[in-house]
Amino acid sequence: MREALAAGVVLELFGTGDALTRHGDLALLAPSASEIDDEALAALTETVQPQGIVAVCEQVDVTLSAALAKGPRLVAVVAEIRDPGNAGTVLRTADAAGADAVIFAGDAVDPYNGKCVRASAGSLFHVDVVRTGLDIVDELRNFGLQTLATSGYGSDDLDSLLDEGALTAPTAWIFGSEAHGLPQDLLDSADRRVRVPIYGGAESLNLAAAAAVCLYASARAHR
Amino acid sequence: MREALAAGVVLELFGTGDALTRHGDLALLAPSASEIDDEALAALTETVQPQGIVAVCEQVDVTLSAALAKGPRLVAVVAEIRDPGNAGTVLRTADAAGADAVIFAGDAVDPYNGKCVRASAGSLFHVDVVRTGLDIVDELRNFGLQTLATSGYGSDDLDSLLDEGALTAPTAWIFGSEAHGLPQDLLDSADRRVRVPIYGGAESLNLAAAAAVCLYASARAHR
Repeated sequence: MREALAAGVVLELFGTGDALTRHGDLALLAPSASEIDDEALAALTETVQPQGIVAVCEQVDVTLSAALAKGPRLVAVVAEIRDPGNAGTVLRTADAAGADAVIFAGDAVDPYNGKCVRASAGSLFHVDVVRTGLDIVDELRNFGLQTLATSGYGSDDLDSLLDEGALTAPTAWIFGSEAHGLPQDLLDSADRRVRVPIYGGAESLNLAAAAAVCLYASARAHR
Repeated sequence: MREALAAGVVLELFGTGDALTRHGDLALLAPSASEIDDEALAALTETVQPQGIVAVCEQVDVTLSAALAKGPRLVAVVAEIRDPGNAGTVLRTADAAGADAVIFAGDAVDPYNGKCVRASAGSLFHVDVVRTGLDIVDELRNFGLQTLATSGYGSDDLDSLLDEGALTAPTAWIFGSEAHGLPQDLLDSADRRVRVPIYGGAESLNLAAAAAVCLYASARAHR
């Protein structure tokens, strides 16, 4: 809520009398704030225990070209990731790692899905969010980004990329769903297919963990 | 299931006729396998759509001294982490990063909680799992492990630790819950209080992401 207000994208705010009093500072920052009853609040929210206050926001997503024209050095792509919690967590992690844009590609979850917004913990309002098709690699490349597609079966491991200094270049990390991985076309068209090394007995990492390791490896290389 | 059988901790296996036929290889590996009906299966499982087959396993946890006597170089501590999904994910990530032991300290979730077991994706059977109190720092130190407590407000950031080569030493990473962080005593008694650097607008990382970044930083330093 505070993040949306700070980003200037709140159109209208609704809350119970109690909540509007408790969060008077938020109500003052919104262009308009209206009191509603518990029943109306329940109709406006998806959570079982709503926090008493709801903001209606503008959609914040931008086009791929608009995001790339700014010359981002770190981009995360969530391709065909249907799980809103996973996509929102990658958005939050990408923001923390200093990514400039997060691209929801192909049949990915809607970034405005309530669970995705909550998992993003405000990061939806910090980075450029793009919704586009799967055919993104050429455009990313045209804007000077190397494209690294993650896969448990990737031929390059993250350690070798770090050892050869390959992560200092502007980079778009492409993540697929835990269950299905990335579509073959996208894997084939990326510059490299990268796996996070597994040092122990686990078969794989979950998506949030793998994305964090990759994005933070880039963040550190970009310092 | 396969991981538990491989670890030799399955006491008995139960399944529907269909499932036992479909997973005949698993049934053969178990000391005993019995056919049960759907109703009995539902009573034995917690999931809404059980997979037709259930194993009763020995508890696998060991004492802190037994785990430390093996001279682990990388240990993860989940302290007071009540959320089973979070604790299980840290267990999985620690295993992937090559950790030797995962310590469930204080009022942490039971590592045998069904959700924790599922989130661990088999890693419960790959590393030494310990259940103990919060008073662990001295014992970790006695066994030559530096103790790094994670906190969003830590005075050392992970990048400076990496820059000064501090992660090559045997290390126990101590993680607290997302909501409450670590108990003050534990923070105070650890060798260092470490924060994962935030390069963007996000306030924090979620637990799974922060643990992945820390554990993989150690894994890379230990190569």
